[in-house]
Amino acid sequence: MGGAGLMWIRVINPNTTRAMTDAIEPCARAVVAPGTRLDAVTAELGPASIESHYDEALSVPGVLAAIRLGEAEGVDGYVLACFGDPGLDAARELARGPVIGLAEAAMATASHLGGGFSVVTTLSRTVGRAADLVERYGWQRFCRGIHACELPVLALETDPDARKIVIEACRTAVDTDGCDAIVLGCAGMARLCTDISAEIGVPVVDGVAAATLTAQSLLTLGVRKSGRGEFATPPPKPYAGLLRSFGSPAG
Amino acid sequence: MGGAGLMWIRVINPNTTRAMTDAIEPCARAVVAPGTRLDAVTAELGPASIESHYDEALSVPGVLAAIRLGEAEGVDGYVLACFGDPGLDAARELARGPVIGLAEAAMATASHLGGGFSVVTTLSRTVGRAADLVERYGWQRFCRGIHACELPVLALETDPDARKIVIEACRTAVDTDGCDAIVLGCAGMARLCTDISAEIGVPVVDGVAAATLTAQSLLTLGVRKSGRGEFATPPPKPYAGLLRSFGSPAG
Amino acid sequence: MGGAGLMWIRVINPNTTRAMTDAIEPCARAVVAPGTRLDAVTAELGPASIESHYDEALSVPGVLAAIRLGEAEGVDGYVLACFGDPGLDAARELARGPVIGLAEAAMATASHLGGGFSVVTTLSRTVGRAADLVERYGWQRFCRGIHACELPVLALETDPDARKIVIEACRTAVDTDGCDAIVLGCAGMARLCTDISAEIGVPVVDGVAAATLTAQSLLTLGVRKSGRGEFATPPPKPYAGLLRSFGSPAG
Amino acid sequence: MGGAGLMWIRVINPNTTRAMTDAIEPCARAVVAPGTRLDAVTAELGPASIESHYDEALSVPGVLAAIRLGEAEGVDGYVLACFGDPGLDAARELARGPVIGLAEAAMATASHLGGGFSVVTTLSRTVGRAADLVERYGWQRFCRGIHACELPVLALETDPDARKIVIEACRTAVDTDGCDAIVLGCAGMARLCTDISAEIGVPVVDGVAAATLTAQSLLTLGVRKSGRGEFATPPPKPYAGLLRSFGSPAG
Amino acid sequence: MGGAGLMWIRVINPNTTRAMTDAIEPCARAVVAPGTRLDAVTAELGPASIESHYDEALSVPGVLAAIRLGEAEGVDGYVLACFGDPGLDAARELARGPVIGLAEAAMATASHLGGGFSVVTTLSRTVGRAADLVERYGWQRFCRGIHACELPVLALETDPDARKIVIEACRTAVDTDGCDAIVLGCAGMARLCTDISAEIGVPVVDGVAAATLTAQSLLTLGVRKSGRGEFATPPPKPYAGLLRSFGSPAG
Amino acid sequence: MGGAGLMWIRVINPNTTRAMTDAIEPCARAVVAPGTRLDAVTAELGPASIESHYDEALSVPGVLAAIRLGEAEGVDGYVLACFGDPGLDAARELARGPVIGLAEAAMATASHLGGGFSVVTTLSRTVGRAADLVERYGWQRFCRGIHACELPVLALETDPDARKIVIEACRTAVDTDGCDAIVLGCAGMARLCTDISAEIGVPVVDGVAAATLTAQSLLTLGVRKSGRGEFATPPPKPYAGLLRSFGSPAG
Repeated sequence: MGGAGLMWIRVINPNTTRAMTDAIEPCARAVVAPGTRLDAVTAELGPASIESHYDEALSVPGVLAAIRLGEAEGVDGYVLACFGDPGLDAARELARGPVIGLAEAAMATASHLGGGFSVVTTLSRTVGRAADLVERYGWQRFCRGIHACELPVLALETDPDARKIVIEACRTAVDTDGCDAIVLGCAGMARLCTDISAEIGVPVVDGVAAATLTAQSLLTLGVRKSGRGEFATPPPKPYAGLLRSFGSPAG
Repeated sequence: MGGAGLMWIRVINPNTTRAMTDAIEPCARAVVAPGTRLDAVTAELGPASIESHYDEALSVPGVLAAIRLGEAEGVDGYVLACFGDPGLDAARELARGPVIGLAEAAMATASHLGGGFSVVTTLSRTVGRAADLVERYGWQRFCRGIHACELPVLALETDPDARKIVIEACRTAVDTDGCDAIVLGCAGMARLCTDISAEIGVPVVDGVAAATLTAQSLLTLGVRKSGRGEFATPPPKPYAGLLRSFGSPAG
Repeated sequence: MGGAGLMWIRVINPNTTRAMTDAIEPCARAVVAPGTRLDAVTAELGPASIESHYDEALSVPGVLAAIRLGEAEGVDGYVLACFGDPGLDAARELARGPVIGLAEAAMATASHLGGGFSVVTTLSRTVGRAADLVERYGWQRFCRGIHACELPVLALETDPDARKIVIEACRTAVDTDGCDAIVLGCAGMARLCTDISAEIGVPVVDGVAAATLTAQSLLTLGVRKSGRGEFATPPPKPYAGLLRSFGSPAG
Repeated sequence: MGGAGLMWIRVINPNTTRAMTDAIEPCARAVVAPGTRLDAVTAELGPASIESHYDEALSVPGVLAAIRLGEAEGVDGYVLACFGDPGLDAARELARGPVIGLAEAAMATASHLGGGFSVVTTLSRTVGRAADLVERYGWQRFCRGIHACELPVLALETDPDARKIVIEACRTAVDTDGCDAIVLGCAGMARLCTDISAEIGVPVVDGVAAATLTAQSLLTLGVRKSGRGEFATPPPKPYAGLLRSFGSPAG
Repeated sequence: MGGAGLMWIRVINPNTTRAMTDAIEPCARAVVAPGTRLDAVTAELGPASIESHYDEALSVPGVLAAIRLGEAEGVDGYVLACFGDPGLDAARELARGPVIGLAEAAMATASHLGGGFSVVTTLSRTVGRAADLVERYGWQRFCRGIHACELPVLALETDPDARKIVIEACRTAVDTDGCDAIVLGCAGMARLCTDISAEIGVPVVDGVAAATLTAQSLLTLGVRKSGRGEFATPPPKPYAGLLRSFGSPAG
Repeated sequence: MGGAGLMWIRVINPNTTRAMTDAIEPCARAVVAPGTRLDAVTAELGPASIESHYDEALSVPGVLAAIRLGEAEGVDGYVLACFGDPGLDAARELARGPVIGLAEAAMATASHLGGGFSVVTTLSRTVGRAADLVERYGWQRFCRGIHACELPVLALETDPDARKIVIEACRTAVDTDGCDAIVLGCAGMARLCTDISAEIGVPVVDGVAAATLTAQSLLTLGVRKSGRGEFATPPPKPYAGLLRSFGSPAG
């Protein structure tokens, strides 16, 4: 627990860019209730940003190492701060409490705002992954379109035109798809959320805040995963090579 | 607003049985954050309980009257405390802020707990409505089964064996479906939630608490429905007969 | 029965505009067989037209009152003359014989005319409801598109350009979607059906006529709903407030 | 036309067993309106009964020959009296007016009777074809099960226990699936329809009658397939071998 | 077997145009392994090309006659060299070994090349059949579009611009759909496959080669259909008329 | 290339148990054509067996390291010899030629054998992953069931009853699901394939052999992934920590 009965939520940035963690953390902190301790950590191994299936797959060990550490420290719940929800199923096996992905939380949240949402993502090569997640979670009937703004992830922080470019992509999505909400398809867009909504006149859902609130809600409800079945703690076994340390039980 | 900057959430019991409202309200109150004002109201017109498509259809005017009143009073968000989510689309057109149904919130919540949930409802004649909502919200790939415990809604309060019967139905659902969570398919089961979970060893999601937290989260995020499109305020027009008063603008 | 062994079908206009009932009735009458008695009634409570989820929800008590009256009078089957199929499930519980919605009948009819149909509706805010019904009845693989002509329902009767505007929307649908048939998405378009078909060269299905024939066919087949299960007569119970009278058994 | 302005519907038995045609014809005749001429023909080439994909495929030339003849004679609409809907798409290209399959009509009809139907077919090897058609027409959400009674098609006429065996399969379907209606999955079961319904207490839909009424309804509506697109008249071309005569234009 | 332990695969051209068989055969021969005997036959009855549901239905007896002959001769596996996969289910019942359709093989092959493919077909009236097969085999999530080049099947051989026209349609498909691969929707396009791929820069899958390799793979695996169930040998029975000879057992 | 113009296929065992690689390799070697060079490698980092989402996620770096090495050595195509298809999308980005997963290949292969297959897997906690892949590849309409035999992966090699237990699970699957084929849900079952088929009388598909043949077929066809879009080579970027070496370009 987070100390003195507080619930403790940790935001895990699955990429290894600390500046992005620093930009994300306030978006999560802004929404938690008084009784919640929140911190954010950066993956210690893996890619500087996640822009391909390759990057995403290789971000997962870093995510799982962070979960293992969190379990040892007594963290209650986790947010995976990347829209690809990397390693979500594995993380859920490992953690005692909730682990929430940005995509699953943002799309569930957007579903309560009307009949359809559109996703705005970074590079067009990530559109496929977003589409996979739409289908994986069953949001096909709500998702009206997925649009790339063609900004690399880290350029969201550094490109002086980033705000304008993302807003433009959101506007195109609204005009093309007639959607009732926009889902931001990258953690790096979180801090632009309010601005975009003000510009385009439809609600905009940032997954960082949405996932943080979802984790907090699950902790408030006191629901914990079943101890048996698909998401029970994975059976310990020998692990070899660089990943040797992952074979011992977590926590 | 709920006064002094508080956010104000109102739980609407769509049936006209005040005792049920009284049983539901604490389940919602138990989960809201310090900064949230919560109250619960009973529909002033319609059926004493909702156990058929007929009952559900005729509970909607009472729901919409409650929303109209809430809008006039400054309520920020609403929970529709019936698992059929009666009148949800219409209520969403009417309200400025979020309106959350039990079914949509409970199923979204359960989706974060594993790969599949089962629903336990009251009479078997309501299974079809639950199945419609599973499909309406896109949870087919998560919903593993819908089980009736064959208790009428109001007997949940009065039958001395209610607790035992519902637990038995939940146990059957877990054994038959191998589900990772149970979703309670009636607001009247809310107060049994903790007991059931303790008995059956898988997490149990009560829609009253789940929907209250979802409403609170949407208010925290500050997202509001788009002002245009399918869920914009309905165009005012003449209404006739008993429902005459519904024709004037709300709020 | 309709007297002297005749079968009696009643068209219920779910809105309260008698002029629209008067325009609809001949479209139904034109298709019934000699052995069928047909009449049309106007809802006695509710909205003057149905152009939102709110209007639709509040048209349902009027529909159900009409069904209750019909059952008392001995009507054999009913047509719900609004493309939103308002209150269909509840009406089906209440009536001994068939109750047919415009959307379900028109789409089933169009499915026999080729591989795909498009729907032309009134205001764009009603497109979402039409899409919900397409999914509810399983016509996703047949429905190629839903197009709004942006005429309010009652303007179909009064706007001198109505015919031209609807034809234009139909033509756009055919050109855009390559559909094999058009489904008219509003009872108020019924009387334009023949004209439109002549203009655009693909078959046009009016739901009023389609639903009337479907009701007549079910009566001819002599199939009646099962006495048990989801659509059995709803259990009687206390109803409160304006809707008090709906609590007593019908018929 | 059927003479003197009558509409003329022809039931085509796709197998070559005249006794079965004779058993089917009265089931169609019983439901047509006074203004409809009805006759039934037996395929002149192909299998004695249809109990495999092979039989079904080889029944199609006979069906199409019958349609060609019908077009030359002035028949207005056709019923394909086999639950596999053999050659439906091809027949629809060939005919000016409606061609209706048993499966498509029976399932559409059953959909108006409640939330779900089950199909009872002959041999279990035909279950796959029924499932294909359920999916082809989009009835997955309505079809609750498909049950074989393990009677060969022609035994329906000759086996003294046929009635009892089919009723038993229907009862099993109702008990297992909780369905609201039964769809008979073979034209040879048509004459048992009323008996079965009386025995099992849920409505039973015979496709022969349902398809006949559907054809009649389409003729009454005056809708005819589009002259262009997927179902336009097939382009004439050389045909070789036994099927040489099929290459010339029909009608 | 193909003699001396060779496996013997026969390509069946379902239309009766020998020139097309001659063009197809080398595309199949080019991909088989040394240990495979390959020949190609032309249907002896039916249409000169397949451009409608009518043509396709009437190509099936020729296909089945060819399978019957092949079984008598000892052929091990078959390719149905038409993108409509005509008579596939029936052929599979008849043959002891594998029978592979172009569409099923080409789409499965394309699925291993990325997240989505587009189909390029001949006349637009065949788009519907391609869409049916996409759904029949479950490729909806991979198929991004179906495009017609508006060349009749036989013009693929004779029109001097055929190559250019097909390439243009492929390019349009890539640009419009953003697909990862092109599936050629007609056996007559097989010989253009390499050229097209070189021009458009995405992989192009020809069904003739894909189906030949699939048949060879199934033979290599030694898997043979189950002797019972839906695809067991069809029960022999009397056949009448022109198709009389099809009633005797094959092989 | 595999030398002297040979094509070179490498089977990658994603777990780190060399004995399993040794058991798998002959199953692949048995099916390749003369012109194909085949070898098998064991992952150098990661879990000893894959029995959870955690194991699977952590097998991916080993898979990708093997692909990187293979690209440098000139391997033409790869088989990922684990039924979870771990890292398939990422591997496909990395490799110039085909990368084939066991699940995708086995299910595609089984689809050509009839209307439905069942999967037999190891521990019941892996059923969820198999179900995810069924959906991911679109095989829902073919997959009739997924059955666990409750043997851990490595016990397939060591438990003297393994053969009997797996056969029993296959028999149960056939009897329960009425399937036309069995898909073996673990690479460790590959060597049992022929025995099982002989015992249960329906075809059994081993993914190792199926995927090897699929890779060989794609190489024979000469189709290579598109150079642009979702599966283009991932953009190089800094990688940190244990996975630092993955950041440099492969090959």
